[in-house]
Amino acid sequence: MPQRFERITIAGVGLIGGSFALAVRAAGLAGEIVGYGRTIASLEAARALGLIDRIAADPAEAVRGAELIVLAAPVGALVELAERFRPHARPGALLTDIGSVKGSVVTALEAAWKGIGPVVGSHPIAGSEAWGPAAARADLFRGRLCVLTPTAATDPTALARLRDLWEAVGARVEEMAPAVHDAILARVSHLPHLVAFALVAAAAAARADGHRVLAYAGSGFRDTTRVAASRAEVWRDIALANGPALLDAVAEFRVALDRLEELVRARDGAGLEAAFEAAAAARRVLGGGT
Amino acid sequence: MPQRFERITIAGVGLIGGSFALAVRAAGLAGEIVGYGRTIASLEAARALGLIDRIAADPAEAVRGAELIVLAAPVGALVELAERFRPHARPGALLTDIGSVKGSVVTALEAAWKGIGPVVGSHPIAGSEAWGPAAARADLFRGRLCVLTPTAATDPTALARLRDLWEAVGARVEEMAPAVHDAILARVSHLPHLVAFALVAAAAAARADGHRVLAYAGSGFRDTTRVAASRAEVWRDIALANGPALLDAVAEFRVALDRLEELVRARDGAGLEAAFEAAAAARRVLGGGT
Repeated sequence: MPQRFERITIAGVGLIGGSFALAVRAAGLAGEIVGYGRTIASLEAARALGLIDRIAADPAEAVRGAELIVLAAPVGALVELAERFRPHARPGALLTDIGSVKGSVVTALEAAWKGIGPVVGSHPIAGSEAWGPAAARADLFRGRLCVLTPTAATDPTALARLRDLWEAVGARVEEMAPAVHDAILARVSHLPHLVAFALVAAAAAARADGHRVLAYAGSGFRDTTRVAASRAEVWRDIALANGPALLDAVAEFRVALDRLEELVRARDGAGLEAAFEAAAAARRVLGGGT
Repeated sequence: MPQRFERITIAGVGLIGGSFALAVRAAGLAGEIVGYGRTIASLEAARALGLIDRIAADPAEAVRGAELIVLAAPVGALVELAERFRPHARPGALLTDIGSVKGSVVTALEAAWKGIGPVVGSHPIAGSEAWGPAAARADLFRGRLCVLTPTAATDPTALARLRDLWEAVGARVEEMAPAVHDAILARVSHLPHLVAFALVAAAAAARADGHRVLAYAGSGFRDTTRVAASRAEVWRDIALANGPALLDAVAEFRVALDRLEELVRARDGAGLEAAFEAAAAARRVLGGGT
C-alpha cells in the first residue's frame, strides 16, 4: 500500500503536472496539493479545474512543509526551480521531475538538492501535443510506462515510495540508468520530433509552379508531422539537454534514409519493397492507436 | 448535371477503387459496375459488400462495353493493365487511374491507349494506411481534393466529364500539369512515407544497454510513423515512378534537418526555438485531424 503524501508541490501545472495532481488525488495519495508556476492565469485555471488546492505566490510558500516536490516544467527550467526551492524546503523533501531527458537533468538536480533530501528522476511516457491545465486527465498515466532513473546516489526508500506512487496512478514502472533512458528516448521521441519539424520546415518553404505545397497536405502528412505542433520551448530544452544522444540518433536515421535513397536512385524495386516491408512489419507490431 | 456511365470497369477494388464504386453509385452515376483484379477472394469480398455488380474473369470480359475504365491498382501495374484491356476496349472508352504519381504514368497510359479513347489522370488525395474492399466508404472523397492532370493530348470533353464525376462524389477538383502534381506529392506524401520508413528502420535496429528501443515507443512515435504501416508494394511503385521528384524532396528535407542538427550541435537555444516555432506555426495551420 503506497504511503500518502500530506503535502505535494507541483511546479508547472500543465498537461502532465495537472494530470499528476488529478491522478494522485484520485488514488487517495495526496493531502494538500500546492501549485506553483510562471503564469498566474494558468495556475488560476488549474485551481478552478480542481487540479490544485492552493496557488503559491512565491518559492517559500510553494514548498513549505511539502513532502514531495514535482517539477513539471520544461527541461531547461528544472534546475533553476530546484535551486529556487532549496532554501525553503523541508528537510527530507523528496524531489522528482517529469522531464523527458534524465542524464544531465538528474545529475544537476542531485547537486542542487544535496543536503536537503532524496532525488529520483521520473519520466512518464504519456502526453500529446496538447498542453495546459485544461488538457489534464486523471487517467493520463493509466497503462503507460513511467521510467524511473536511479543513480548510485539514489535513496532506495525514496525510490520505492515513488515507484509505489506511479503504480498507484496506473503506470507500469521500469527502472533504468539515466543514460540508457536518454539513448532510448532520443530514438523513439526526440528524433521523431526533430524529423517532423524538419519535414514541416521543408514543406513550408517549397513551391511547385507557384503552388504552396503545404496546401496539398493530406492525412499522411498530418499524421507524420502532428508532433511538430508541439511547444517550441519544450523541444528546444529537450534538444539541448539530450544533444549528444539526439545527434547519435540523427546519425542512425541518416544511415537508414541514405539506404532508402540509394535504393530509389538505383531503381531497385525488390530492395525497396523488402526494406519497406521490413519497416512496415516492425511498425504494425506497435498498433495504430496512441 | 454529370452524365451517367452505363458501364464502369474498376481494376483493383480496394480502399480507393471500392470507395469510388460506392460513391459513384450513391451519386446515381453508375449503371453496371464490373470489378477486375488479381485476387479472386478480394473481388468476391467486393461483390459481397455491394461494391461491384459483377466479377470479370478475364480482361475481355472486364472492359467489354465499358464507357469508363478506372485503374485503381498500385502505380507499377497501371500501364500493363491498360495494355491488357486495349484489345478489348470499346472505341471511345474513357481511361483514368487513381495513382499517386502522374507524370510517367499518364505519358505511358496515353501511349497504351492511343487510338482507343481519351485518357485523364486522376489523383484523389484521400486514403489511409487501411486497405482492401472492407475499408471502402461512399464518403471517402467528400471534401477531399482530387487532382486531375490534363496534358496537351487530353480531350477537353472527357476532362470535363470526369471533373463532373469527381465533383458529384464530393471532391474538390483542381487541375494541374502532371509534373507539378508529382513535385507537390513528393513533398507532402512520398517524402513523409520515406522518412517514416527510415525512422522505423532505424529504431527497429537500435538497442540501448540491451533494451529494444522500439518497445518504448509512445504516441509521438506512433503518429509520426503511422504511414510506415502502409503496403510495401504500393510505396515501392510510387518511389520508383516518382523517383526524381522524390530525390529532390529528400534533398530539401536534408537541408532542413542539417540546419536543425547544426543548431543542436552549436547548442543554439534561441535558434532552435525560432526554428521549432516557425515549423509549429506552419503545422498548426493544418489542424490536427485527418
